[in-house]
Amino acid sequence: MIVSLGELIAGIRPLDEAAMRAAQARQDLLTKPRGSMGRLEALSLQLAGITRRCPPPVPARKAVLVFAGDHGVVAQGVSAYPQEVTPQMVANFLRGGAAINVLSRGAGARVVIVDAGVAAPMPPADGLVSGKIAPGTADMSLGPAMTREQAAAAIALGAGVARREIAAGLDLLACGDMGIGNTTAATAITAAFTGSSPLHLTGAGTGLTPAGVAHKAEVVERALALNRPDPADGLDVLAKVGGYEIGGICGAMLAAAAAGIPVVVDGFIATAGALVAAALAPDAVAYMIAGHRSAEPGHDAALAWLGLTPLLDLGMRVGEGTGAVLAMNLVEASARIINEMATFADAGVSEKAG
Amino acid sequence: MIVSLGELIAGIRPLDEAAMRAAQARQDLLTKPRGSMGRLEALSLQLAGITRRCPPPVPARKAVLVFAGDHGVVAQGVSAYPQEVTPQMVANFLRGGAAINVLSRGAGARVVIVDAGVAAPMPPADGLVSGKIAPGTADMSLGPAMTREQAAAAIALGAGVARREIAAGLDLLACGDMGIGNTTAATAITAAFTGSSPLHLTGAGTGLTPAGVAHKAEVVERALALNRPDPADGLDVLAKVGGYEIGGICGAMLAAAAAGIPVVVDGFIATAGALVAAALAPDAVAYMIAGHRSAEPGHDAALAWLGLTPLLDLGMRVGEGTGAVLAMNLVEASARIINEMATFADAGVSEKAG
Repeated sequence: MIVSLGELIAGIRPLDEAAMRAAQARQDLLTKPRGSMGRLEALSLQLAGITRRCPPPVPARKAVLVFAGDHGVVAQGVSAYPQEVTPQMVANFLRGGAAINVLSRGAGARVVIVDAGVAAPMPPADGLVSGKIAPGTADMSLGPAMTREQAAAAIALGAGVARREIAAGLDLLACGDMGIGNTTAATAITAAFTGSSPLHLTGAGTGLTPAGVAHKAEVVERALALNRPDPADGLDVLAKVGGYEIGGICGAMLAAAAAGIPVVVDGFIATAGALVAAALAPDAVAYMIAGHRSAEPGHDAALAWLGLTPLLDLGMRVGEGTGAVLAMNLVEASARIINEMATFADAGVSEKAG
Repeated sequence: MIVSLGELIAGIRPLDEAAMRAAQARQDLLTKPRGSMGRLEALSLQLAGITRRCPPPVPARKAVLVFAGDHGVVAQGVSAYPQEVTPQMVANFLRGGAAINVLSRGAGARVVIVDAGVAAPMPPADGLVSGKIAPGTADMSLGPAMTREQAAAAIALGAGVARREIAAGLDLLACGDMGIGNTTAATAITAAFTGSSPLHLTGAGTGLTPAGVAHKAEVVERALALNRPDPADGLDVLAKVGGYEIGGICGAMLAAAAAGIPVVVDGFIATAGALVAAALAPDAVAYMIAGHRSAEPGHDAALAWLGLTPLLDLGMRVGEGTGAVLAMNLVEASARIINEMATFADAGVSEKAG
């Protein structure tokens, strides 16, 4: 399935305000003090706006798409783990032994793994979408990570995978990542869009020393100075300092928004994909729910740029979609509340005095 | 079943440190960067210590005990809702229409409602434990809310209900509350233990105006000045400024700790029960998991006093056990991670370089 970026973006509408107003009115009739469910009430309004229904359906069919890709910039020594870990972890996903598998079983979400650009050959396997754009990006500290055509292909790949899942039946989507070196790409993307200094945004990733973090920030600065990505052009930023898995995440988010399906955003890498999606289609942000706040320092800047507040703040920094899948339960709870609670009138409960 | 307080307290042991060390060692073998699951890792250690097993079992059997009681202090105009709402909401719980019912269905937790001291007569019903100590407390602004014997009876009631549930099969407990006026009692208890000023701790409860909040703080100050509860004597604090539902919660928490079962603490009222439990049996705190941070301002002071950090911070202020039940999913996730994830060796994944 070939997805054109223009067609994808054109399909994204603003949320349905009438459904959101109806959801607010319904919340105020339920047997609890007004506003007392906090974020869960706000979330139910967003779900109504996204699905254009009040009450919004309780999300039963859930999926997490985990996009994997490698990064040429690992040649600069920016990661605590060797590049061979990317295909090893993909194999771990396919056998069901990784954190994302465990949490997805708990959440009742199906897991789809996508090879968007793993450097090593990945044999076909059940549960693996073989969509390799190239065997890893080029080293962004020496030139663009990919061509503009490759960046567009990564977005189209993600959109195509998401559309296939939507066609199979989907109420709630999460996107995750695997790719040694990808916090370096996410840092560069976040710096390019927000204008924050890489020094301020760069973190330990999977476990760098302080000296390693300083070196990584310097590599990001070099890549930005050399490539000069244009923050007004999402595709340019993705091509110059991004990654194939980040492009895939961006495309899946755009496809979900176009189909009226809420997307739970994971940590720093997935949020970098969301930044690219927001640059391409600002209306897509309204379809996003920030699942958690990553321990990676750049994540806050990226979330703030999008205007998103995370549901969970548990000091997690695994990626893979883990924080997003963990937050799916809260999204489901918010929908259950607005669907299943009794009203004051139904229950014969007295309303607030005075 | 009659439960003696001394026997209950004597049964509470410190956590099993060997099981916690084994859990830490196991976490470090799993296919994720060390420490990258954040709070979920810490939680898995606590579960190992509580259950004295590594890995700790995934909690399958869950229950929330919702204790209801009325408060004589409502005569002072401290609540936005009339007292008749307490039995009306109990009836709503029994019909399954309240927030706690909806969230418990989502969490797979059974709901047990306990009449610990509702002012109105409560006809027997399926799912209702009739344990009324008295038809509401006395007005604590005019004298002690209850006698020392009544306070002990409330704790024994809660312990007895919890023990019955434990005998029926229980892996994870939450306690909730219903009682118009009970944020006033919780504020007084929190002030008594922490020494913070009622002015600092008092909030809007179910929806007071700012003038109403100021009046409520003044009523709490008066109750504390008149009754002089002794913070070194948990039973004295409960009797003088507490409530029957808060005593029930305290007793259930002590019984869970004695049985080696983790307890998810709900919001401000449940945490007031936890403060009484901690005063009676300091070792009980290690069995507690703070489910969420309530929007009620006194909750932070109570959590800090216990040294607990909440898992969720969603601006909720419903009570009933809702925040605790919502957090059960995270407790379950932490147990799944340590039980089900592959190790680096199992999965053939390379470990961190250097």
